[in-house]
Amino acid sequence: MKTIKTIDSAQYVYAFTPEMAPVSHIAPGEMVRFDALDALGGQVRAETDILAGLDFDRVNPATGPITIDGAKPGDTLSVTLHSIEMDEQGAIVTGPGMGVLGDEMTSYATRMLPIRNAAVEFGGLKLPVRPMVGVIGVATETGRYATGTAHRHGGNMDTKEIGVGSTVYLPVSQDGAQLAMGDVHAVMGDGEVCVSACEVAARIVVETAVLKATRLAWPMVETSERIHVLVSLPTIEEALIEATRCAVSLLQRAHGLSKEDAYMLASLAVDIGVSQLVDPNKTAKASIPKYALPGPLTDWLSGQDWRGDG
Amino acid sequence: MKTIKTIDSAQYVYAFTPEMAPVSHIAPGEMVRFDALDALGGQVRAETDILAGLDFDRVNPATGPITIDGAKPGDTLSVTLHSIEMDEQGAIVTGPGMGVLGDEMTSYATRMLPIRNAAVEFGGLKLPVRPMVGVIGVATETGRYATGTAHRHGGNMDTKEIGVGSTVYLPVSQDGAQLAMGDVHAVMGDGEVCVSACEVAARIVVETAVLKATRLAWPMVETSERIHVLVSLPTIEEALIEATRCAVSLLQRAHGLSKEDAYMLASLAVDIGVSQLVDPNKTAKASIPKYALPGPLTDWLSGQDWRGDG
Repeated sequence: MKTIKTIDSAQYVYAFTPEMAPVSHIAPGEMVRFDALDALGGQVRAETDILAGLDFDRVNPATGPITIDGAKPGDTLSVTLHSIEMDEQGAIVTGPGMGVLGDEMTSYATRMLPIRNAAVEFGGLKLPVRPMVGVIGVATETGRYATGTAHRHGGNMDTKEIGVGSTVYLPVSQDGAQLAMGDVHAVMGDGEVCVSACEVAARIVVETAVLKATRLAWPMVETSERIHVLVSLPTIEEALIEATRCAVSLLQRAHGLSKEDAYMLASLAVDIGVSQLVDPNKTAKASIPKYALPGPLTDWLSGQDWRGDG
Repeated sequence: MKTIKTIDSAQYVYAFTPEMAPVSHIAPGEMVRFDALDALGGQVRAETDILAGLDFDRVNPATGPITIDGAKPGDTLSVTLHSIEMDEQGAIVTGPGMGVLGDEMTSYATRMLPIRNAAVEFGGLKLPVRPMVGVIGVATETGRYATGTAHRHGGNMDTKEIGVGSTVYLPVSQDGAQLAMGDVHAVMGDGEVCVSACEVAARIVVETAVLKATRLAWPMVETSERIHVLVSLPTIEEALIEATRCAVSLLQRAHGLSKEDAYMLASLAVDIGVSQLVDPNKTAKASIPKYALPGPLTDWLSGQDWRGDG
């Protein structure tokens, strides 16, 4: 059996920037494993480890970055997730000021969450696991984005469709792309309302490809059934509008429709939804079913400039 | 075969108010059929019938209202949808100023949409039908709400989960509830971004029940897998927050959790999403999977006052 190149969990960043120093490199098509700390940096080991006591400088580590050989600014990097192997225990935390209802919370709370038999246990409830990668991104075109923030480069998109079998598409802005990831959740609801989910250390095996001269406006994720455009902006309202705009544009170009026809098709077929409501930028998703956009997504995207779409 | 009482499509209202004159009455447990015009009042018969030319006083008719025998203020009315039989052609319309991207549209457009073989045809695409009831509501406690607006009484919630097999729960504010419905869509994406969906005339067969002394804050809809709290407020951001609050409260009471624990459970299991972004009030949904709220929903709701939850 071939050994897979592994990026150790001790090699991480806390920000996506234009100038990131790679810790390794791979060729497109080569499998690579990212070993990732949980989003709390491994600081929560018991229910007495509450948010108020954590070192926030150690939150949201993203393993990497690594160079993808041959990736150039103006390309799109695709990252297919082959497996996510999680530790047997996760944690969730919340407290006053945290998340959607932070103003209504009066105390800090932490729960340790056993993960066994494909379920996350919360009290007497068993929630089916749905492992996902919360942070995945590449070096930015300009500006520094902490790993806790999402934008055009990816980052903390906290989108539950970024799971095993899905492919993430990220706009490349720097030579080698500089891919980093982490923040695995064993399970999360859309919104991630309390500010965290089942945070767990994990090992993520991925395979990359480079779509030459394909300039995306925003990241996308493709699952077996759907294509999701992921837009992260300061308010969820802005993000929902921009995600709608991107989906309409994609349908318009793909089918050669008028803008009005593409708009109507989106109204019939595209689901506008929420990835997360709690990070510095909020993430909306426009989910296009494959019956509205048949054929390989890469054929639609390849060699085109999509930056004007958002 | 027993004849089902039918409410004719010529018997409709354009507003939900405190004082609605019933056109008929039924007993709980009795099947009843609502024949509903499409949301455009049947005014669109060809692609030359554009929005700019429509009589807006004839938009969003809701068939009814009917009295549900024995329903009293402070009860909850449940409405189970047994079937939705649609005409063979629907229509979708949009134009400048309409919907999420109205500012970017330059012309009015109408498309006639054949519905056959369980698909809505749009150009060469076939979109699987998913019939749903856009407007469903009861007499209000106070205030007049046009049928195009949603609020605590129900109304134009445009929620695609309100389909065959689902049960809608509505807070009763007046004697007899005064149930009315219409605005069937053969298919719609979450958001209904262009302002309309596949608008179609239809015949809806439902069965009602009355949960005594159960006071809901907001409507809910139950499907085989999930329970959705439906909140309609002037901005989607407010609606998303309020929907989160309602879901946390429901989990808190159902499981006897602390507020913080219920908040964390919601973050793990509840999907916060969008029903529609285009009506005068926007509708958000908090979708609770049944593995997080096991057992019949009626058992959780019955005989409790939920009005403080939102």
